[in-house]
Amino acid sequence: MTEKRSEVLVVFTPSGKRGRFPLGTPLISAARQLGVDIDSVCGGRGICGRCKVQVGEGEFAKYGIRSNAGHLSPLSEPEQRFAEKHELPADCRLSCHTELAGDVVIDVPAASQVHHQVVRKDYQARDVEVNPVVHLHYVEVEKPKLHEPDGDLQRLREALAEEWQLADLECDFQLMPGLQASLREGKWRVTAAVRDRREIVAVWPGFKGAVYGVATDVGSTTIASHLCDLGSGEVLASAGVMNPQIRFGEDLMSRVSYVMLNPGGDKELTRVVREAIGQLIQSLLDESGVAARDVLELTFVGNPIMHHLLLGMSPEQLGISPFALATDAATTVRASDLGIQVNPGARAYVLPCIAGHVGADTAGVLLAEEPDTYDAVSLVVDVGTNAEILLANRERILAASSPTGPAFEGAQISCGQRAAPGAIERVRIDPDSLEPRFKVIGCDLWSDDPGFRDALGPLEVSGICGSGIIEAVAEMYLAGVIDTDGGIDGALVERSARVVPEGRTYAYVLHDGDPPVHIVQNDVRAVQLAKAALYAGVRLLTDRMGVQTVDRIRLAGAFGSHIDVKYAMVLGLIPDCDLSRVSAAGNAAGTGAVMALVDRHARAAIEAKVREVEKVETAVQAEFQDYFVLAIAIPHKTDPFAELSKSVKLPRSAACERSEEPRGRGRRRRKPGAE
Amino acid sequence: MTEKRSEVLVVFTPSGKRGRFPLGTPLISAARQLGVDIDSVCGGRGICGRCKVQVGEGEFAKYGIRSNAGHLSPLSEPEQRFAEKHELPADCRLSCHTELAGDVVIDVPAASQVHHQVVRKDYQARDVEVNPVVHLHYVEVEKPKLHEPDGDLQRLREALAEEWQLADLECDFQLMPGLQASLREGKWRVTAAVRDRREIVAVWPGFKGAVYGVATDVGSTTIASHLCDLGSGEVLASAGVMNPQIRFGEDLMSRVSYVMLNPGGDKELTRVVREAIGQLIQSLLDESGVAARDVLELTFVGNPIMHHLLLGMSPEQLGISPFALATDAATTVRASDLGIQVNPGARAYVLPCIAGHVGADTAGVLLAEEPDTYDAVSLVVDVGTNAEILLANRERILAASSPTGPAFEGAQISCGQRAAPGAIERVRIDPDSLEPRFKVIGCDLWSDDPGFRDALGPLEVSGICGSGIIEAVAEMYLAGVIDTDGGIDGALVERSARVVPEGRTYAYVLHDGDPPVHIVQNDVRAVQLAKAALYAGVRLLTDRMGVQTVDRIRLAGAFGSHIDVKYAMVLGLIPDCDLSRVSAAGNAAGTGAVMALVDRHARAAIEAKVREVEKVETAVQAEFQDYFVLAIAIPHKTDPFAELSKSVKLPRSAACERSEEPRGRGRRRRKPGAE
Repeated sequence: MTEKRSEVLVVFTPSGKRGRFPLGTPLISAARQLGVDIDSVCGGRGICGRCKVQVGEGEFAKYGIRSNAGHLSPLSEPEQRFAEKHELPADCRLSCHTELAGDVVIDVPAASQVHHQVVRKDYQARDVEVNPVVHLHYVEVEKPKLHEPDGDLQRLREALAEEWQLADLECDFQLMPGLQASLREGKWRVTAAVRDRREIVAVWPGFKGAVYGVATDVGSTTIASHLCDLGSGEVLASAGVMNPQIRFGEDLMSRVSYVMLNPGGDKELTRVVREAIGQLIQSLLDESGVAARDVLELTFVGNPIMHHLLLGMSPEQLGISPFALATDAATTVRASDLGIQVNPGARAYVLPCIAGHVGADTAGVLLAEEPDTYDAVSLVVDVGTNAEILLANRERILAASSPTGPAFEGAQISCGQRAAPGAIERVRIDPDSLEPRFKVIGCDLWSDDPGFRDALGPLEVSGICGSGIIEAVAEMYLAGVIDTDGGIDGALVERSARVVPEGRTYAYVLHDGDPPVHIVQNDVRAVQLAKAALYAGVRLLTDRMGVQTVDRIRLAGAFGSHIDVKYAMVLGLIPDCDLSRVSAAGNAAGTGAVMALVDRHARAAIEAKVREVEKVETAVQAEFQDYFVLAIAIPHKTDPFAELSKSVKLPRSAACERSEEPRGRGRRRRKPGAE
Repeated sequence: MTEKRSEVLVVFTPSGKRGRFPLGTPLISAARQLGVDIDSVCGGRGICGRCKVQVGEGEFAKYGIRSNAGHLSPLSEPEQRFAEKHELPADCRLSCHTELAGDVVIDVPAASQVHHQVVRKDYQARDVEVNPVVHLHYVEVEKPKLHEPDGDLQRLREALAEEWQLADLECDFQLMPGLQASLREGKWRVTAAVRDRREIVAVWPGFKGAVYGVATDVGSTTIASHLCDLGSGEVLASAGVMNPQIRFGEDLMSRVSYVMLNPGGDKELTRVVREAIGQLIQSLLDESGVAARDVLELTFVGNPIMHHLLLGMSPEQLGISPFALATDAATTVRASDLGIQVNPGARAYVLPCIAGHVGADTAGVLLAEEPDTYDAVSLVVDVGTNAEILLANRERILAASSPTGPAFEGAQISCGQRAAPGAIERVRIDPDSLEPRFKVIGCDLWSDDPGFRDALGPLEVSGICGSGIIEAVAEMYLAGVIDTDGGIDGALVERSARVVPEGRTYAYVLHDGDPPVHIVQNDVRAVQLAKAALYAGVRLLTDRMGVQTVDRIRLAGAFGSHIDVKYAMVLGLIPDCDLSRVSAAGNAAGTGAVMALVDRHARAAIEAKVREVEKVETAVQAEFQDYFVLAIAIPHKTDPFAELSKSVKLPRSAACERSEEPRGRGRRRRKPGAE
């Protein structure tokens, strides 16, 4: 009869940690002594509910325990109070106010673990470890005494040291003006936000259960932000705005030129992007009802030029060889230094850059995609105005940036536009009649489906987007409208009204509406140049790594989500690869920013990882030009990689699984939850 | 013949460190290997001249060296260049470009030592160790390379690590916007300012020889600043302004009341004091031709209310029991956080407070006066609106604050004024005739000297200052105009026209001009209350320490510099003490601020020391009232301390010397120059 023994057995699942403790031991003490990772903000006062555990019913034969029934102390008063205010399911207990009364099996749900994993369903991104750099700690602070004239701050620090073992904390000066009032308003009970177990960054009167962070991907075209609960790791809201710097130059180099030609222009570009970020964050806060003062951490990714402008550094040097970064390291500054008005103690963490052309956005992709954790050779491509290319396996990580130009974004294409409702995104051309059919964004039907006009509604076919132009050119090639050199066959004018003269060359009439959508010779050339640049960049990296094929391809960014990889392969945009091993990675850079926001270990990981990246500077490699010229032609089946693709050593099915083994070169992957 | 030996002897004075080195060894290398402390900013490039040494002529028999003649390499090219640009006396060499050619004795002058002492002559203050928290380092930075895409900052850090052994430096984000331009302007040669061997805070193109700091004493009435060269420790300029907070309340408590009664009033008081400090610093810079960007460090002392307002913290809690400080610790913030526009990387260090009534100003006094380094019992009094009192010996440090009121500053006295030209500062009264004579500030003659009127010139006798009122009341007592209870003897109206009825009491006519200067009964009462408060405070401390006499008295502040201590003793303002052991300490609080500015060790020292101070809260000690009442009477010769003054254990002549022995309670005094 276990009830009569003075010591009882407790088993925590899923860890399986077990031990014997005297009757009456609080569950949370037993957990702590066994090293079971249970969260708390209130420090065992039954307020925060973070230490909730589940107590199953039934037999636990595998643990040698017959039943949990009656083997815990009855529901305590604080638990009853908590249950009235919040939710406390019948099988849940607060481990801080529950004592052992017999042998039990206790399940610690993921949400109650200090380091837990959040499984994403809502957007295309990987699961994320939650282990935020800012943590909340509820404390009771000693009142001041006339004869002990230490400061309020010192007594707060003592309380944090005593209750939370947070010794020698620094204190952000920004919170000092409000500290005395907070302590008195909270009747000497306050919640302190501690950053990195090193510095008190904010204090609230009384109990405070949640603080927030915002992860932002500063793209040259679009800025996208995600508001996250730092405790749960959940993304509460996401939004994007156009980067207002566009009015100073559509692409990056024209913005750098603007800075070079206009003294003080960099400050102007810095100002507008910071303002836009501030407004975007505010809109997320408005949407979710979170107060600006409750935002304590920001993270940023962006290409080197966005990175520099965000941080108030001129991008001038990034426009001229040798493309020197002001700094390549991860940078932490006050949010207020970036002019962003959240909590005065909030910090902004900007991911490291990899090279003058390979920025913090690529660091974000590397963090999110972890191509260096596979035995297989992974190619990760983030296509924008430049294509950032990562080629990696467990042994090496290579990176390059290739100047694809904006064709893949639908820019600098005669009828091009961004991916927005009305844009043609899918194209098919009948090889016999040369008649096209297409789909536009915002409509589920093909243009030759019955009822297409009606289904369009008020929408007009307004142009063609990046994925559309890829398909159009690939289909034109497959239908014989263009040859392997990319020239539009003028002889077809005789055969089809779809091919028409335009200036001294020809065009293909994809849509004969108002506006019409033509694919002109120069559009085909733009796609050829873009895909040649991408191909040449990839080829440089495979050469450097000494491989001739890749085992997996991940396409990051909006482009990667929209294109049909089959057409990308038809054009030779990406190397030949088993189609089942080619997939979209979503906004991997943004995912990296979210990971760095909610998981402090992700920061250390990416900071270490970028130092191992071998950078390949495309601009100065003689082979780049050779490969570029070679790749201008449109391949059908004869991708230069294809012939050698049998040389891969590992069976793909095995090699493409994520490896859990230590990587090569003596590195070990950090274990989740390790400090 | 030393010349023929392959190794030669070098002796460095004053340290006496000696060693043998191969012929041709640069002097600075020999010095470094022997641990001889020679400064450098340029890192041995012959630019900065900080490593200058003296090469004496003659015999050095005590070192076994016959002569220095010819025992050093000839004047090098860099030395010749340096001599053309700057000054290089004939007996001086740059140790970085001078090689050993024989046995020599080399003298390292104080100015070439990293930690050197500056002997003050210009103002009444102690010598100061120079070991600033910010140091300049000239470096040559690797140019960026296309194939090594590390940032400019990383290469700067590498250069600092390699040339100066400054590893893992952080970098103040504020300098990043200018970094790339500085590196290119300086052709990859820059001077970096490194704070605390931990953080790069500023970078200049090319060689930079000097940076500056400002030490400020924020008094309730006056703000005084000293501009110092952080390298040499010299005070270049000093200036003071009135504290503009005076318009919100003459004394501290009325300013606290203003804050309590006016929401947002604290912010107003903070704003005006910061503005005044900014202007004061700017005036020092204008006067000395130093650029604001070259100021890298600020230090501040002030009483707790000034301390809180400077840092933007409301002083409200300091006005109500238990007088809780927001923080008692030393605080380092960015200068820009205080709205002070110097170098963006500049920091402000505010000395720690001791208690709610004993502030960073007293910490400054403690640092400057070091009463805890004497075997003798020292009393240090800093008189203002409150008197801060320190009683200390090598065993204990006691501190209290006593509410003396503003009488000693000439305020709330009927004809009182601040110590300014025209104010009566010395008074003598003939005991027989009761006729007075006096001196005014700005005139060297006594009022009864022939030619006094002419000597006054355009000056008018305008009132009486703090030291004047002390002397006036003391002389009135000595002349029998007032009795031991402080009452003006109305019977004297019969005997002298100097004693006149005024209201229901009497007044003494000190000066019958326009305006007249009368000492009225209430003036005498104000002095009695003030000196009783001071006495009671001192008495509490001597009681607490268990002593009945003090061995030395130091009077800090303007009051201490102006009063004649004999009269202070006549009134019983300070306890009886050998007059030769009573002296003025000058602006000791300001001196403490200067020490903390130019000597990083002084900061650690005072931060440790304030934690050992035993604070005595006068307001709640029952004895305070008793002593206060007892001390209202004016003692002549029967100071309560006097009778027991023989009980002192150590002969004063010995006890009053500064002790170089370790103090009690296991503490050791930091050795100069030790890290």
